[in-house]
This record gives sequence, structure tokens and C-alpha cells, in this order.
Amino acid sequence: MTMAEHLIPDIASLQDPALAAALQARIDGKTKPLGALGQLETLMLRLGLILGSETPQLKSPQMMVFAGDHGLARRGVSAYPSDVTWQMVENFLAGGAAISVLARQHGLALSVVDAGVAHDFAPREGLIIAKIAHGTRDASAEAAMSIDQCATAIAAGKNLLRSKPGNALLLGEMGIGNTSSAALLLARLQGLPVAECTGRGTGLDDAALARKVAVLQEVLDLHAQAQAPLQALAAFGGFEIAMMVGAVLQAALERRVIVVDGFIASSAVLVAARLQPAALERCIFAHRSNESGHRLMLEALQAEPLLDLGLRLGEGSGAALAWPLLESACRILAEMASFASAGVSEQH
Amino acid sequence: MTMAEHLIPDIASLQDPALAAALQARIDGKTKPLGALGQLETLMLRLGLILGSETPQLKSPQMMVFAGDHGLARRGVSAYPSDVTWQMVENFLAGGAAISVLARQHGLALSVVDAGVAHDFAPREGLIIAKIAHGTRDASAEAAMSIDQCATAIAAGKNLLRSKPGNALLLGEMGIGNTSSAALLLARLQGLPVAECTGRGTGLDDAALARKVAVLQEVLDLHAQAQAPLQALAAFGGFEIAMMVGAVLQAALERRVIVVDGFIASSAVLVAARLQPAALERCIFAHRSNESGHRLMLEALQAEPLLDLGLRLGEGSGAALAWPLLESACRILAEMASFASAGVSEQH
Repeated sequence: MTMAEHLIPDIASLQDPALAAALQARIDGKTKPLGALGQLETLMLRLGLILGSETPQLKSPQMMVFAGDHGLARRGVSAYPSDVTWQMVENFLAGGAAISVLARQHGLALSVVDAGVAHDFAPREGLIIAKIAHGTRDASAEAAMSIDQCATAIAAGKNLLRSKPGNALLLGEMGIGNTSSAALLLARLQGLPVAECTGRGTGLDDAALARKVAVLQEVLDLHAQAQAPLQALAAFGGFEIAMMVGAVLQAALERRVIVVDGFIASSAVLVAARLQPAALERCIFAHRSNESGHRLMLEALQAEPLLDLGLRLGEGSGAALAWPLLESACRILAEMASFASAGVSEQH
Repeated sequence: MTMAEHLIPDIASLQDPALAAALQARIDGKTKPLGALGQLETLMLRLGLILGSETPQLKSPQMMVFAGDHGLARRGVSAYPSDVTWQMVENFLAGGAAISVLARQHGLALSVVDAGVAHDFAPREGLIIAKIAHGTRDASAEAAMSIDQCATAIAAGKNLLRSKPGNALLLGEMGIGNTSSAALLLARLQGLPVAECTGRGTGLDDAALARKVAVLQEVLDLHAQAQAPLQALAAFGGFEIAMMVGAVLQAALERRVIVVDGFIASSAVLVAARLQPAALERCIFAHRSNESGHRLMLEALQAEPLLDLGLRLGEGSGAALAWPLLESACRILAEMASFASAGVSEQH
């Protein structure tokens, strides 16, 4: 049995024409012009299909922020030093980061997962230590992780998700250097020029962006054999992305709603979807990031995100900001009157 | 003293370079890359300037849905019969409309204002009867309202807003035929061809849309003299738009945050801004509507809306959906840590 057969669950398609028709009829019967709630109606249909109900209810949403460090960061691909990864984990746990504030606002259970930060954390409430190693290796010199490490990270992501209650996963991440991994995965799996996939991350200037593109081209060339999704993931990293792949696959298997944040979370979904395309049916794309590769990533995933606010923070912040729209969709399905029940006249 | 001098308060500009600089420094000091929260950062700055604080707090948000009927509806400019206006008011009050559901979700105090519905309502909780008349007159035959009615409606909007607590107004409306008034106001005040300003409203087909454009051109020609904002408003209606103009001006005077919904609410803001340009500084545009004239309207107002979900329902639904973003902006300003306080390293 190959690694993939052990690791990767079969994800069945949610195709259910009867439920889809019932949901559409329910949406169309609401007291509003046909289609007047726009993309929110698409969201209602999607949530109903994922949760298998005409009146889906979101329960115990889990915001899981996966953190890891990247050996490639030593090549100067980020505007910030690697120490910011562990410092931000501390900030998440102390309640001071954007995602901490937004999770509190929306009642999202926040877990921070040490998937492979180059730092030893003291154990505490809200922190899950699932460290694969103290950061990945430098992908410009060798594979970021071994195939074993990659498999271990995916399995850990699956197990972590399985241990969580509820029916919704919101994906967040932190890792200085991880826009490089996401750009490399996009370039390789989608066959795109790396320059089109590469953005400024946390804020590179033009010269530094050009250097980043050159480094990433070098990494792509070094790992020319890493064409399959798992091989590419192992070659380019990181641990937090691999763990998100596992969490996405497990959540998809359990028919949970998966709320995808920005560029890096989307790269995990891209890998998961190449392994099990039906996983995508469980995904809600929260926003279009300002990171320049994200537009191509969303096209690759045929995704229509909910928000377009020029965000480029990561942490799951876009997923958290979009969350109330999912709740609105469910409430409208459950609570909004129909033309018949409200005695409102229909169209001429 | 002219009507305008009685009716229209002087709205001072919020220019406050010291506060703006302090807000920007506060935003830039948060533990995130510079600008990484995108449009949410613009929102933080705007909310801080409106409410005059580095840590603005939103209090007792008021969702006011202004309803009125339109004599022009007899010309077949809407896909729905005029009776839907009062039926939807009943639906709002019974808690079954989209805006009812969303107001409950977000803790918005919902008031429905009968600005001029062609129906007599039984008084009840949540309904404010401020009827100017049983619908406007047919604007293709005469002015939709007299100058006196227009002034009365604006004054009523001011008084209604004044009676409400809190520091935030969310604008909603209901009125079969009111996309016609909004399109006419846009065409006249912005000097645009009416065909570009006119959309399908609640769902006209191509033939009905062409008839609507022809009727609106006729109305524009009939009222060629109605060039000034208040004259145009009286000529084209409706009562709900005039009352919103009053509410916007009063809210602006009191430095409340004004959350603008879609095409019709924006047309009230357009009139208010032509009367008192600084009123715009208090406005947050919730979304870009799918009603085709709204893009031009937003350009006229130099507005960058928060959401772009293809909504075209009105009722204040887009304003309600955007509301959590305003709350997020305030919470982030108040609660998110700075690089200094969290001990996070800054950019290289």
C-alpha cells in the first residue's frame, strides 16, 4: 500500500439533486425577488449541501491556526525575521492578535497548532504542540521535509481535526516564509510561471520581490521531479501547510464546512483538491487576498470568494471576517418567511 | 429665509489632522504588516474620525427602514405590484423578512417607518407612522410630491433620527417603484444618460427594462426645470427617499456613523451630499448592489463599498450584512496588541 492510500481518505461527491432542488425551491420561495440575495444564495445552497439539510445549522466553529517555520526564510524571502512566527504564536495565545480579537467577536473556538515552529513553547490552554521539527529545511538546498515528515504532518492534521467538536473548520496559519511555499505549490501544481504566483508577502519592496522570484525559480528547478501533489508539498513545505491538508481532508470526509482564508490556506486546499477533488465541495472561500498569486489560486480552484477587502494578513483573519455571512445564510434559510407564509404578492 | 435654510443643517467637515495621525499611528503599530488589513484599516480611520476617538465604540445601532409608494409604479416600472410595499412592511414587523432576520442576528434595533405607503397600518411596536400621503403622485404626469411635502418628509426624517439613541444609523428602504426615483435622481444630479442609470429593479426582463427607460426619459423631460437637489427630489420622489435625506443630514450633524445600503439609500445620500458635502464624511458604503446604476452612483459619491455580493434586495439588508465589519474595525482598534506591547519584532 502506498503512502497515499494510507493517508488520503476517499472523499465522496456531495451530489444530491433532490436536496439541491429542495434548497433552491426554499431559497426561491423566500419573500424577495428571485436571486436578490446574490452570492448569499449560492452560499445557502452550498451550506445546505455540505451539512445535508434544508436548514443547515453551524455548530461549534473551530478556528485552527497552524504555525510553522521555513528553512527557506534564511534566503531573505520575507520582510520579517523568522522569530516573528513564535512571537506571533505567543500573541495569538495572549489574545492580542487580529485573529484573537476576531475569534472572540464571533465566538470561534481558537486553537493554535505548533506544526513546526523553530521555538519551544511552554504548554498552555489553546496551544496544541504537534511539532514535526524546528522548522523545515531550506528548500533551495534540499527538500523542505522528508516524505515521512510530510505524511506525519498530514496524519496529525487529520487527528487534530477529528478531536474537535462541531461542523465547521476555519483555516488559519502563521509562518514567516510561507507565501513562498504557497507560490511554489501554485506554480508547480498549476503549471504557472513562478513570477506570476509570487507576491510581496508581508511587504517586500520591488528589489526584494525580484530576489524572492529568483530564489523560488531556483527552488522549482532544484525539485523538478517533485510533480505529484505530495511530492511537491514535501519539496516546498511547510509543516503548517501539510497539517492543513490533513485537516481539510478529514473535515471534508466528515462533511464539515471548511472556511478557507487567504493565499496559504488556499494552497493547502489546492493540494487537498488535487488528491481528492470532492474536498472542494466542502470549501467556502472567505476572501480574495491582496497577495498577488491569490487571484490565480482562486481561478485554479474555481472559487468565488465572499470578501474582497485587500487583506493580506493571514492568521485566518479573512475567514473570521467572513464568518457572519455564513451565519446569515443559515439564519435566512431557517427564519425568513416565504411568499405563501407571509401573504406577499408574487411577481406580475 | 428659504426652505433650504430652514431645513438643511450646516454640516462641518471632520478634518482633524491630529486625530487622523494618531489613528494612523495606532493602526500601523498593531501586530501586523503595514496595511495588511486592507480596507478594514480605511474603515478604522473613518470610524475613528466620525466618532472622534482613537478607540471608537458603536452604540445602539439603529436600522431604520423607510417605506413609501410611488405613483409612477402605475406605469409598469416594477416587476411587482405596489401592494407588495405594505405587505413587506407587515413582513418586516412580523419578523419574517431578510432584514428582520439580519437585524436580530446583529442586535440592530429595527424601526419601520411608514413614510408614505398607500395603505393604513394598525399601530404597533416597531412601526413609526409618519405618512406624508398615500404614495407619491405619478411623476410622469406631475411632480411626485409638492415642495411642501418634500420639506415635511425631510423634517420628519430629521426628527425621527433625533429621537433615536446611539451613534450609528443603518439605512434601509422599501417601496415598489423606488429604483426609478433613484435612477432619475442619479441621472439628473450627475448629468448621466438615464439608460445608464436604470436597472432591472426587482427583476424586469429586457422588454420591460426598455419600457422603464422610456418612461424615465419622459419623466426627466417633463421635469427639465427640476435641476437643484431638492427640486429634483420633489419631482421624482419618493417620500421614503426624502425622509432618508433628513435622517442622513441629522445623523451627519450629530456625527453618527451612517451605514448606506444599496442603490436607493445611496440616492438619498447623493441628494444629502449635494446639499451638504461634508455629510459624506460620515457615510460607510456597505455594498455594491447588482442594480446596474449603483456602480455609477458609487463613483459619483467616490465611495468604496465593503461588500460586493451581487445583492439587490434593499431593505437595508446589505447594510446589516456589512455591520460586523464595522464592529471588527472598532474591536481591532481597541483590543489588538501593538508590536511594542506584544514583544513582536518589526520589519527588517
